[in-house]
This record gives sequence, structure tokens and C-alpha cells, in this order.
Amino acid sequence: MSQYLEMVDSPVHVKKLTVNQLQVLAEEIRQELITVLSRNGGHLGPNLGVVELTLALHYVFNTPKDKFVWDVSHQAYVHKILTGRKNRFHTLRTTGGISGFALRSESEHDCYGAAHAGTALSAALGICAGRDRRGGDEHVVAIFGDAALTNGISFEALNNIAHTTKRFIGILNDNEWSIAKNVGAISTYLNKLITHPSYNKLARDFERFLRRLPKGEVALKLAHKAEEGFKGALAEVGLTPNVTQGAEGRGGYGSSLIFEEMGLRYLGPIDGHDLPLLIQTLEFAKTCDHPIVIHVLTKKGKGFEAAQRNPEKFHGLGPYDVHTGATPPVKAGTPPNWQDVFGQAMVRLCQKDSTLVGITAAMPSGTSLKLLETAMPDRYYDVGIAEEHAVLFACGLATMGFHPVCAIYSTFLQRAYDCVVHDAALQDLPVMFCMDRAGLSAQDGPTHHGLFDIAYLRHVPNCILMAPKDEDELVDMMFTGTHEPHPTFIRYPRGPAVGVPIKDQPRLIEIGKAEILRSFANHGGHKVALFPLGNMMALGRQAADQLLAEGYDVALINPRFVKPLDAGVFEFFGRAAEVVVTFEDHVLMGGFGSAVLELFNEKRITTPVFQIGWPDQFIEHASSVEDLRNKYGVTAEAAVARVKAEFGAAKTRARRDDFVAA
Amino acid sequence: MSQYLEMVDSPVHVKKLTVNQLQVLAEEIRQELITVLSRNGGHLGPNLGVVELTLALHYVFNTPKDKFVWDVSHQAYVHKILTGRKNRFHTLRTTGGISGFALRSESEHDCYGAAHAGTALSAALGICAGRDRRGGDEHVVAIFGDAALTNGISFEALNNIAHTTKRFIGILNDNEWSIAKNVGAISTYLNKLITHPSYNKLARDFERFLRRLPKGEVALKLAHKAEEGFKGALAEVGLTPNVTQGAEGRGGYGSSLIFEEMGLRYLGPIDGHDLPLLIQTLEFAKTCDHPIVIHVLTKKGKGFEAAQRNPEKFHGLGPYDVHTGATPPVKAGTPPNWQDVFGQAMVRLCQKDSTLVGITAAMPSGTSLKLLETAMPDRYYDVGIAEEHAVLFACGLATMGFHPVCAIYSTFLQRAYDCVVHDAALQDLPVMFCMDRAGLSAQDGPTHHGLFDIAYLRHVPNCILMAPKDEDELVDMMFTGTHEPHPTFIRYPRGPAVGVPIKDQPRLIEIGKAEILRSFANHGGHKVALFPLGNMMALGRQAADQLLAEGYDVALINPRFVKPLDAGVFEFFGRAAEVVVTFEDHVLMGGFGSAVLELFNEKRITTPVFQIGWPDQFIEHASSVEDLRNKYGVTAEAAVARVKAEFGAAKTRARRDDFVAA
Repeated sequence: MSQYLEMVDSPVHVKKLTVNQLQVLAEEIRQELITVLSRNGGHLGPNLGVVELTLALHYVFNTPKDKFVWDVSHQAYVHKILTGRKNRFHTLRTTGGISGFALRSESEHDCYGAAHAGTALSAALGICAGRDRRGGDEHVVAIFGDAALTNGISFEALNNIAHTTKRFIGILNDNEWSIAKNVGAISTYLNKLITHPSYNKLARDFERFLRRLPKGEVALKLAHKAEEGFKGALAEVGLTPNVTQGAEGRGGYGSSLIFEEMGLRYLGPIDGHDLPLLIQTLEFAKTCDHPIVIHVLTKKGKGFEAAQRNPEKFHGLGPYDVHTGATPPVKAGTPPNWQDVFGQAMVRLCQKDSTLVGITAAMPSGTSLKLLETAMPDRYYDVGIAEEHAVLFACGLATMGFHPVCAIYSTFLQRAYDCVVHDAALQDLPVMFCMDRAGLSAQDGPTHHGLFDIAYLRHVPNCILMAPKDEDELVDMMFTGTHEPHPTFIRYPRGPAVGVPIKDQPRLIEIGKAEILRSFANHGGHKVALFPLGNMMALGRQAADQLLAEGYDVALINPRFVKPLDAGVFEFFGRAAEVVVTFEDHVLMGGFGSAVLELFNEKRITTPVFQIGWPDQFIEHASSVEDLRNKYGVTAEAAVARVKAEFGAAKTRARRDDFVAA
Repeated sequence: MSQYLEMVDSPVHVKKLTVNQLQVLAEEIRQELITVLSRNGGHLGPNLGVVELTLALHYVFNTPKDKFVWDVSHQAYVHKILTGRKNRFHTLRTTGGISGFALRSESEHDCYGAAHAGTALSAALGICAGRDRRGGDEHVVAIFGDAALTNGISFEALNNIAHTTKRFIGILNDNEWSIAKNVGAISTYLNKLITHPSYNKLARDFERFLRRLPKGEVALKLAHKAEEGFKGALAEVGLTPNVTQGAEGRGGYGSSLIFEEMGLRYLGPIDGHDLPLLIQTLEFAKTCDHPIVIHVLTKKGKGFEAAQRNPEKFHGLGPYDVHTGATPPVKAGTPPNWQDVFGQAMVRLCQKDSTLVGITAAMPSGTSLKLLETAMPDRYYDVGIAEEHAVLFACGLATMGFHPVCAIYSTFLQRAYDCVVHDAALQDLPVMFCMDRAGLSAQDGPTHHGLFDIAYLRHVPNCILMAPKDEDELVDMMFTGTHEPHPTFIRYPRGPAVGVPIKDQPRLIEIGKAEILRSFANHGGHKVALFPLGNMMALGRQAADQLLAEGYDVALINPRFVKPLDAGVFEFFGRAAEVVVTFEDHVLMGGFGSAVLELFNEKRITTPVFQIGWPDQFIEHASSVEDLRNKYGVTAEAAVARVKAEFGAAKTRARRDDFVAA
């Protein structure tokens, strides 16, 4: 069926094809993407959009010598197919398979990994600096989306490029749609570049100019001429104030180019699906002795109708029907996702409390804050991929008597750690952080797992950290958080919640109060106290059942708060139990169990604490959460096994105690 | 002596003075600044630069109703003097005195606190959003320096302003000199605005226009006209390509305004010491129904010759001679600062290892990386106040075989936490982080104390965390770090080191190996094992001496590594000792002592651990580190007292053990 895809397994092969053959190959790659992702899920839309761009890049440049730095790198599937991973592509995002993101350990063609937005320009500039120090002649290409420009790091990089290197190639892959519709002045600005008649004329002129040249003759001496011609045209455009934009209070001058102001040459916008044009433009870029940005327009989901119709859904998704794009219906009886419970609760809470507003950093669908946008659009802010600004903006609102709710993934809030410390916590402002994706995002892997938030937040003064055992408690905690004058944080994972009914009226939870679900029966069995945090309650219940069945005397406590810990409950059960078991969907180092150890040490409680959680290493991606939990022993079985081993090892313990007393 | 300063203690008083009287007041305020800071130290240059600007702000606006958001807020001294804190101004930066930064808890006129750069625009936008939601008519003014524009958050905010509010006043306080000379394209760009002849003409035109208006008549109907006139002039300027800049490869068009592209009106540049002009411009800004940025040129250190001559030194400094600006000579015998040892070591290491480069985020003096800049300028990068970019840039360099050294304060590295996790650690790249200011910056206070770095780094996989007991060990650790293929972190405090000689040739330290300075004598005394981390060694030695004098059997161990901990040494002494004492210049929660507890729990060691360190609250500023250590019990005395109390409390402990066993 595939005519050229079978022949192509490395960039060398790409270079051997004609442009016409590459165009056929492009369609074959699209079919491969659509087929594999219909089974494995993944970032379909972005990859369908960059097929021609990626082919052109590998046609013109030579990886691994030349370096491609993909921003976020969710759009690097085509690059993977072309760089020796075609035969493993069907394993994408599965256990033991290839990653959904660029990964240095996976291929020498992946010179830099990523999955959080906005890092490509900075990293690529570092690579350029390294090349320049060595006097190398490698080309370094950073491929970044329009949404990356809503992130401040991109601007920090832009500020440094021109005075650091003379050779830097940026590809602005503008699909007018980041994860959600892009927001803010940058989006307006790019749109202006695209729609301005003079710019379009300019792009056409440049295109004609390039097309007149026989392939291969785009060389250094032409570069100069091209630039002159281009800049002449630019100067002409510069005269025209953009009246339309001015009228709605934006910009005012459609004349200038932010990139040029930052010291980079700008070329574009050009059609990102016109393979010959892309190739010629990249050949031109190769010859530039000045940093350059090429503005490429691509269509998310190109070649798959459903994906073009619904770009947000097809940005990243699970399995779907390979023909229609339909996603399988949710199995009857599946509990609602934590996300949806959050979104619905936001609407309910906002309806009753006029001080509440919701803030997302470009994740309205992922967090389900879009439910608030739909129901109460004026209570909703999307600030772009700008977590730092989101937190500071919330802090500003809080000083004016509002109670903002920031819906940010656990791993993305890492970006705003300093703002949490320096602004929210130090000023002790009432901002609530709903940390979605706390726990594993199995198929995405280490960049998306939310396994560090307790460790990076617990030591921050004034903060209250909560984790609900089920979706009803999530709503209670949100309700509670909105009544607190301090920064509050609620962590909950991706995916289906527990399936319990949600009360009509949420209830305030006493801050720092744990919930005792089962106390000791004092029937003479070995006493084991289980403390499963948040979504670990399922494991805790399993472990409790198994231990009870074997005659142990089991207490089961829902900690609810990591900070403040319920000192009274922990002390009571810590002293009464022979063994304490903590469960957390978080790294053990610096996590919830570690907080328990601090408390026990302070209270002089010497009961051993068995900690179930994630080890001190980055956890890879896998097909499912279960695969990873089984591999790393984050299971009820592991907890039960340790408890049982303990009570077979009593004699050894006694000897150790003798040694200490000696 | 002071004619008007005595009469002025609130913004109401400022408004009662004539412009001529305000000009006299300006000089009186300068004298007050120069006098108080000659004793207390502080940010002299920046405050001398904003005297007229601050007077104009308080003349035109009405705090606390109107809101001033100061970026960094080290330039808010004049604001403090004018808002009820004149009589306490002599207590600036001293124990119990007023803070060197804006502080919400200090005055209702401080609507938002800060000390890390780049937060003002975002916070002010949040305040605007809050005002707009309520339909308020407050004016919100964000005052930010040119250096704030090298920070990405400022751009995240700029991207959001125009579509969020219609009323926003930004004051770009451009002194062409942030802490060090400003770097990058933004600096070039602002310089272009200032020096471009057309812009200067424009500013003069605008000035003449305003000067023609009688005071008070700058009203809504004029605003429109002013804008028209101004924008006409702008359009004219827009035509002129900036040839000079183009020649050196920057920009190419001196025509456009990044602020305008981002949807804000731009006014300026205007003379920031021309009080009448400032007042008229701010009156105009009040009437704008569109976000506006006013570009104000100020002179750092204005009115104090020494400060104008040496703006970097006088940005922030300790006491100096009130007449000459001379700072007292370092007392003979004072050990070198940790900073200088770091800077000198960087030069020595770079001379021997061509893969090493140094990176600072606008702190060449504070970190002493300027020593490298002087000695080997091509091995040195200053990227602006852009910690995230600094880390990513380092990561890019690391992938090219270099070993970058990032010299970033502990508290500022908080900004780049995600980059440390997502880029340096996940890709396990050889980047060394020298975390200056780990510990207290007493006079600056909570925003500058470096008390969280262990807690926010220890759980990050692949990282190696070190703390040297003295300056010789600092150099050894730097040497060791440059040989490690992993991310390494070295924490050391501000100020004088210990005074030990530094070896000619640094020595490699085995990773994860503690140093036993004194082992148990087994003479029958109570066994106490002391583990003072890094600069806490001084306290550890004192405590050891005192306990030895009282007959205790004391072991003294230099942990060297927080990660990996020396499991063998900790286990041995943990089991052998009756009490373990950890010392750390860090919060206790999630800190070094907590790491020891995790190890002890894992090894089933039940020896109590007494943790000396900082409590779970933000630590205020004070005159000296000693004041704060005494207040919070971070002392050898506190450690000794706890140990002694322990051995008087043995009976109580026994009862508790009975309870546990029951």
C-alpha cells in the first residue's frame, strides 16, 4: 500500500526522493499517523500539520549533525518516523515503546527533549553557542508554535539571540491554534501579519522570487539580494497603519515586526504545506549569516477531516475510529473524570460566590475549566501558556478582594514555583490552586507525571495542601478552599474519579483534620495503620481488606491534608500501631510520608513507617497507570507484602534495638 | 534644615505643595536618602533616580485608593517616606524597622509587595481586572525598570493587558542600567528609542504640547487630541529605517514600538527629572481609556556624585561615607567572601578546562562572576534577569559537550525550578548550579533569604546537592562538580567565608561521602552525633566544644552531600549515638534533617533527631544574621540546650516507650 514509506527509514532516504515523490510520501505518512494513533492515541492534529515541514527539514538539513529543537515536541512524530523509528512507531506511547515526545535517550536525531512549552528557542541558542565556541558549521533549527510566544521564556530567548550568535534558524509553526485557541496580543499580532494585504503580497513576492531560482542556486550571493528585496517590500508595508486593528484597540501599527525589533530577520508568512516552497525557503535560511525566523502557516489535522473540523479535540486524544474520527463512547458506569467534577463544581461555586473567578494557562479542555467559560464567560480568564503570569494575575485579583482559582496541572505549576512562594504565599493571599494531573499521565511520561508537587510546596509557609479521596470530597475541598484566607492547593489525578455521588450542598472541611474511616478493633491482631493520600484510597482499601482477611487489626485513615497534617490523629495512630503505611501518588523523597516522619520524630514516635510511592528516578511512559504501578510496586500488594514480611522479621528487629541501646 | 520634608508625611501633603516647592522637597528627600543609607545601606542609586517620579505620582494619584505596583520595589523608599513612614525611615532594613521593599503588611499604600523582578505588570493587571469587575475607578500604575523587560513574565503580562482591561498605566523607568549593564535586544531597542533623532523630536513636540496647556486643563477632550497629534508624529517616525542599527545586525527598523504591537499606547521617552513634565504626562495618562506605557528616563544616583560615577556599586550597598561615598575598608583579617572565592575559582577552573563556561542572570557583581568576565570574557554569558532562559541555555550548551556553570542566587533559582526538572535533570545534563545567597540575606528579608533550595531540589532525580563547610571545600566541590556528568548544585551563603587557606590544587571529593571530623571516644559519656551542613559547621563546632566540655561523647560529621546522603556514615553514627543533631541554614520542613529522617526510617534507626534550622514561616528582615538566628534559635546554644534537656528527660522517654510497646 505504501509506495515510499517502506523505502524511507532515515534522513538519507528522504534526500533521495524527488519533490513529487516526497509529496506522495507525505500522504503515506499521514495515513500511518492516522492509523497508529487511532489505536494508541496521541497528538494527531499537530503532527498531521507538520508533515511537509518535517519532510522539508530533513530534505534540506542533515541530522544528527544538524540539530532540530522541537518546542514541546509533541509534533515530532513525523521526525521520528523519518529517523529510524518507523518500525517501532506502532509502539508509540505504549509500555516499552517509543515516547510521544523527543527524547535524547531514544535517538541521536533527538538532540533535545521537551514537553513543556517555550523551551526550544533558549535551548537552541545554547546549542548555537556551543557550536560557535567550537567553530562548528552545524545548522540549528528551533521549531516552535505560535502558542510558545505566549510564554515568557521565548521572549527571554529572543532577547538574547542576536547578540549571542549569527546563525540561528527559527521556524514559527503558526497553526492559529495552540492547545486551545491562542490568546492575547501576540495572537492578534500574528493574525495581523497573516491577514494584512501588504504582508500577503510580500509573501507572494518572496515566493515568486524563490520560485524563479533553479533549485540549488539559492546561495550566499543570492541571499543578500533576497534580503534587500524583501526588506524593501517590508519598508513599504511599514507605512500603513492598520486601521482595523486600531479600531478595536489593538496594535495600531501593522507595520513592524517584533522579531526584527529583537534583532532577528523575519521571513513569511509562507504556506507550510507547499513542499517546494518550504524546501527553497529552508535552503535560503541555511545561507543566512544572521539569525532568522521563518513564519510558516500550517493546518492542524490536515488530511483527516474530523481533525480539521475539531482541532481542539484532535490536538491530543485517545483511540478513535480510523475513518470517522469518532471516539468510543464512555463505558456505562464509568465514573466522571476528576476534571469534569472540578469544572462543574467551579460553575456551581461561582454561581453562589461572586468573588470567585477561574484562571487557566491555555488548558481549558484539559482542566475542564471550559465548563466555566461556557456557563459564565465573564468569570473566566485564559492567559495563554503563561503559568507565571497566571499566578501573579491571580495574586493581583486577590488583593482586590477576589478569590481566584488557578487550574494548572501539577507539572506545569512547576513553572510558577517562584510566584507561588514570592507572591501568593509570602503575601498570604487567598488563591486556590487546583492541581490537575497530580499522579501519572501514563502515556505522556515523565514530563507530564505530576509527582513532585507535595515536595515543592510543602515547605512553603502559609500554604494549605489537600488531596481528596473521591470526587465528592474534591468538591468539599474546593468549597473549603474558597473560604480560606490563605493559598490553598488541591491535588487530584487525571481520569475517572471514584464514582461516589456528589452532595447537593458541599460541606466545609475543618482545616488539618483527617478522616478516620476505620479504627483499631483491639482484637489482638497486629496493629497496622494505613494512611492512603487522595486517590491512593483505592489501594488503601484493598490493602485493608487483604490485611483484615489475614487477621490483622487495621486502621484506615484518610489524611485529607498534607499540610497541615492532623498531628493528633497521626500521633494517636502512630503510637497505637505497630506499623504505619503511607500511600502517595508522588515521589517518596520529600513527599507525604516524609511529612509523617517529621511529625513522628518531633513527637518521638518510633513506629516504623512503610512508604508506598514513587522512587527517586524519572518514571517513563507506559500504556497504562497500572503497568507503571506494578513495575514500581505502587500497589496494595506491595504494601501487604511489606507488612507481612515485617511480622515475620520481628526477631531481627529486636536485635537491632539491642544494638541501639548498647 | 529641611524646609518641606518636615511638613510632608502623607500624599495629601504632597498635593498641597507647588511645583517649585516640590522641587525643593526633592532635594531634601535626596539628602535624607543619602544620610540614612550611609548608615543602613540599601538601594541608593535607584531611589535617587526616582525622586521626582515618585513625587509626581503622589501629586497626581491618590493612594491607597489608586494603586502603585513597584517592580522589584527596591526603588520604593521615596514612596515610603511620602506615605507615613518618614519618621521610621531611619529604621530601614534594621531589626524591627521598615523593610527595604514594598510590603502589604507595612502600609495600606503598599498594595503589592515584590523583590524579584518582572512581577509588576502581571500583578497590576490582576488589580485592574479586579477593579473592572467591581466597576471601580481606581487608577493602577505599574512602575517597572528597563531590566524587567529582559524577564519573560513581563512579556506574558504585555500579551494579556490589551484584551483584559482598558485602563492600565505602565511607567517604564529606564535608567539604562539595571543591576549590571542591561543586556540583549530589548536594551538595544530601548536605546534606539532614546537616541533616535525622530523620537527625540517627538518627545520634544509632546513636551511643548503639554507645556502649552495650563495645569489642570489636561482633560478628556484634550486627551484625544494629544493622542492624535502624537500618533501622527509617530507615523512619520515610522518611515525611517534605522541604518546604524541595521549595520550592526540589530533590528533594522527604528520605526516600531513593541508596546504598540502588544496593544498598548506608548508615550515617551520623557525626562524623568522634569517634575512639571512628569506631572502633566501623568495627568494625561489618567484620562486615557486605553492601556498606556510612559517611557521615563531617569539617572541612577542623581544628586550624589559618587553614585552617578559608579552606578553598579551604588545600586545596592552597605554603609558608606555620606560625603564621598567611600565604603569602609574591609577589616584586616576578614575572610574573603564566598562570592569572591567562587569567582576566583571559576577563573582558575576555566583556565584548565575549556568546556567550562559561566552564566549569570544579571548578577555579575552579586555572584562575583564578573571576575570571570574580566579575566576570560569569552567564557562568560550574562543573559539578563532571565533565570529560566539561563538554565535552558546552559542545557543547550551541555548537549554540545560543554559544562556550564550557572551562578544564580538560591531564591532566584526558584524561577527556573521547572527548567531544572524538565530540562537539566530529566535529560541528566552536566550543568553546575552555584547557588549563592543560600541562607539569610538579613537586611533584604524574606524575598532574598535562600531557605528553600534543598526542599525544592532534593526530590529531583539525578541531582547531586552539596554544601561546603569552608571556602577550600567550596573550590573542591566546584572542581568535583565539573567532573560529574549529572546536574550538580552547591549551596553557600552570602558574606565572609571561614578564613581557611585554599589549596593550590583542588581535590576531587567522592560523591556522597561525608567527612568525619571527630568520632566517638567511647569514654562513657552520652553519645551525641552532630551533623552541621555547610556553613552551619561553625555552629556545629561551637556545640561540640560546649558538649565536650560537659563530658558528652561527641561525634562531628561534615555531611557535604544532602543528596546522595552518605548512608553508611549516617547509619553508623545514627545507630551508635543516643541523639543526633542536624544543623541547616534552611527551613526544617523538607530540608536536610528531613532527608536524614527518611534514611533513618528506611534503616529502622530510631535514634531521635534534633533539627536545628528555620521554622515554617517567612523570616523577616533584620540588621544582622545573628539577630535572626538568636530570635529563631538557630544557634549552637539551642542545640546544646536541647541535648542537655534530653538527658534530663530520660525518665519521660521511658514512659513513652512503654506506651508504644503496650
